[in-house]
Amino acid sequence: MEKLLIRHCEVLTFEGREPRFLDARDILIEGKRISAILPASAEAPADCQVIEAAGMLAVPGMINTHAHVPMVLFRNAGPDVNENDWFNKVIFPLEANLTPEDVYWGAMLGQAEMIAAGITCTADHYFEMDWVARAVEQAGTRANLGWAVFGHQGYGQLEETIRFVERWQGKADGRITTWLAPHSPYLCDPDFLARCAREAARLGVGNHIHAAETAGQVALSLERYGKTPVQVLADAGILEQPVILAHCLYPSDDDLDLLAGREAGIAQAPKTYLAMAMGLADLPKYLEKGIALGLATDGAVSSCTLDLFEQMRLTALTQKNKAMDAEVLPVETVLDIAFQGGARVVRQPELGNLKPGNLADVVLLRQDRPAAQPVINKAANLIYSLDAQDVDTVICDGKLIYQGGRHLTLDLEEIYREVNARLPRLLRKDLSRKIAEYPE
Amino acid sequence: MEKLLIRHCEVLTFEGREPRFLDARDILIEGKRISAILPASAEAPADCQVIEAAGMLAVPGMINTHAHVPMVLFRNAGPDVNENDWFNKVIFPLEANLTPEDVYWGAMLGQAEMIAAGITCTADHYFEMDWVARAVEQAGTRANLGWAVFGHQGYGQLEETIRFVERWQGKADGRITTWLAPHSPYLCDPDFLARCAREAARLGVGNHIHAAETAGQVALSLERYGKTPVQVLADAGILEQPVILAHCLYPSDDDLDLLAGREAGIAQAPKTYLAMAMGLADLPKYLEKGIALGLATDGAVSSCTLDLFEQMRLTALTQKNKAMDAEVLPVETVLDIAFQGGARVVRQPELGNLKPGNLADVVLLRQDRPAAQPVINKAANLIYSLDAQDVDTVICDGKLIYQGGRHLTLDLEEIYREVNARLPRLLRKDLSRKIAEYPE
Repeated sequence: MEKLLIRHCEVLTFEGREPRFLDARDILIEGKRISAILPASAEAPADCQVIEAAGMLAVPGMINTHAHVPMVLFRNAGPDVNENDWFNKVIFPLEANLTPEDVYWGAMLGQAEMIAAGITCTADHYFEMDWVARAVEQAGTRANLGWAVFGHQGYGQLEETIRFVERWQGKADGRITTWLAPHSPYLCDPDFLARCAREAARLGVGNHIHAAETAGQVALSLERYGKTPVQVLADAGILEQPVILAHCLYPSDDDLDLLAGREAGIAQAPKTYLAMAMGLADLPKYLEKGIALGLATDGAVSSCTLDLFEQMRLTALTQKNKAMDAEVLPVETVLDIAFQGGARVVRQPELGNLKPGNLADVVLLRQDRPAAQPVINKAANLIYSLDAQDVDTVICDGKLIYQGGRHLTLDLEEIYREVNARLPRLLRKDLSRKIAEYPE
Repeated sequence: MEKLLIRHCEVLTFEGREPRFLDARDILIEGKRISAILPASAEAPADCQVIEAAGMLAVPGMINTHAHVPMVLFRNAGPDVNENDWFNKVIFPLEANLTPEDVYWGAMLGQAEMIAAGITCTADHYFEMDWVARAVEQAGTRANLGWAVFGHQGYGQLEETIRFVERWQGKADGRITTWLAPHSPYLCDPDFLARCAREAARLGVGNHIHAAETAGQVALSLERYGKTPVQVLADAGILEQPVILAHCLYPSDDDLDLLAGREAGIAQAPKTYLAMAMGLADLPKYLEKGIALGLATDGAVSSCTLDLFEQMRLTALTQKNKAMDAEVLPVETVLDIAFQGGARVVRQPELGNLKPGNLADVVLLRQDRPAAQPVINKAANLIYSLDAQDVDTVICDGKLIYQGGRHLTLDLEEIYREVNARLPRLLRKDLSRKIAEYPE
């Protein structure tokens, strides 16, 4: 079994929900797993690959609980537009241009971006997912993949996404898991959702779905069905299996009670909410109910970057200001959400914490920029001063995939060449051709 | 005269308020000034120092319109606390520990951080400002320096700050300008403020002051004086000279009318407002009134970093969400505020825009990270995807001070050694010793 020794780093670990920062530790990785975290040794054993990490902080690989990774192809294509125009005049027409190969190169670019930002596991919700799975396999990361499907595409297309689940479950040496991914209760009707619930139960997988993103969506759902979006999901049986609810900014108190105690997690991407003027979730209430919360990048046309450091910081900052109380979401809670919360949402309990026995997804952060010095409060420094560009080294599933600013599994030049060659065609917009219609 | 040629870059320039991105340009700098921006030449002339900048974006040196730079010594010392505790239990007691030499090393660390983040000019509001001025001189940056004074320190101390203004005005080869810096209308009474106004008029300088930061401060002012903080300043004559109002989140409509048409600028540091749960300004209203707005870092105990890229992004994002309208503060307006707005606030019209004749404060940004590719909308990419760590090269007053991640005027190791040696003493807290008392 291959051995990797990270020497003389600081380590962020959790005891229960509480973050602890350990000084001067060695992390021993054997095969896919962390086998020990020990006081730093004077000498490295001979049979290990050694990473010298003095001055660096080791944190768990970050978990992106909701993304549309290939959308990096359209990064910043639609600034300064509200929800309706964003869907109907920017995204849904642009996405009509995508070929499977485009999706692949978008996924490759997004993987390169995420690895460099310390993200080792992503719940990705998009189309042509075989091509995304290939990119994940190549990148050496971990992913929970769902092939997005709209109700109007019909049950034949749902079958296609089921076959994807079956084809890729447990592939890439176990790094890939697959779920179903009906788009949303506003673009899938209750019968369609009920079918997704039954198929997920049969397959032993979860559903990954958008829900209650805006006040307008809730109003539309009440008008159409006399129920909130979360009630629609509950009545369709979606909450009987594991589920990732993307965004869910506007649940009612009853909705939160429906979610509490289920295998339901909520993905939070505040950069999207700010950019698209969607408002903000009342997260302390979700936490009170014991609902799992994780951070998410969403797609790069709303969030502009696939960066969970930024989402972590924005989660803390925006919640304080929303509550008009700086004591809301203290640093300990924010770190628990960012690291362990992500693992809860994607239902992978062996991730999100650096401890012996867990899977070895480890990120090393430099702390030597002036902006990160001096280090007075390690938790606050990690949340408010360090950022994605402080990532030095990334290990996923026990394998080194990024070091010193260099990708070890991906060829950036080739990716840029492929993406930029496709761009002129991808940006041609014909409003009469779009993949779906966002309801007013 | 020394010549510097930046070759083959993209250039952000402004025509009036409108940003323009020029491709494939050379920027010629002679002495302190930009002498030409030309289509990229095939060959570099022999008599120039040449900076090869293919693929990079040249932007104006960023202008930090309100900071307490030496507070980087206490970076992240007080997370998760509200205004009153922040002042009375964290900052004012910690600041009682500061010696003049501590202030110097704090200023040096802050200068290192700001240069690396593309900030070339800072309106700094702190104590022991001779030591800050020395740090600015050494760093090679530009600054507008004000020695902060509280009313309770008395007129003798005000005199001291006046002598500072006289000692340092125009020093460091013209890079340093000096203003008066009464702390705030809540910690300086109206007579004290009136004296500051008269002295500023006599000296031909401005005042740099905190005002209307919280709703609580406005209520206190109305209770004490029957006037808003801005009315107090107006009645004291402070608005008759140039003035920087730090934060000013809660002006009344009448206050905005008082400020309109004056030499008054407002400094915005939304990271502070979020972290301390202060609410947010209604910036579109300020812009409608034609009031100058600039970005600011504030101090690192509230903002955690001295980073105007982050403040720029947060300004845009938070304003959209506050207005619940994503069309608010479009990218063009954000860039005008970030670059030209800063120059308006510090009243330096030869800064904030890259054009022939202007002072040569130039920052080169790399655009080659996956997170910044592909480039579809240059303005949106600059605001939402690039960040401080993309700064490659910094030129201030025609001189190269930072290149390829390396400081050319500052010794980082020496700064870290000095700061960390001081830290244990600086962090000893005695609540009975503080430099001022924030009013409930």
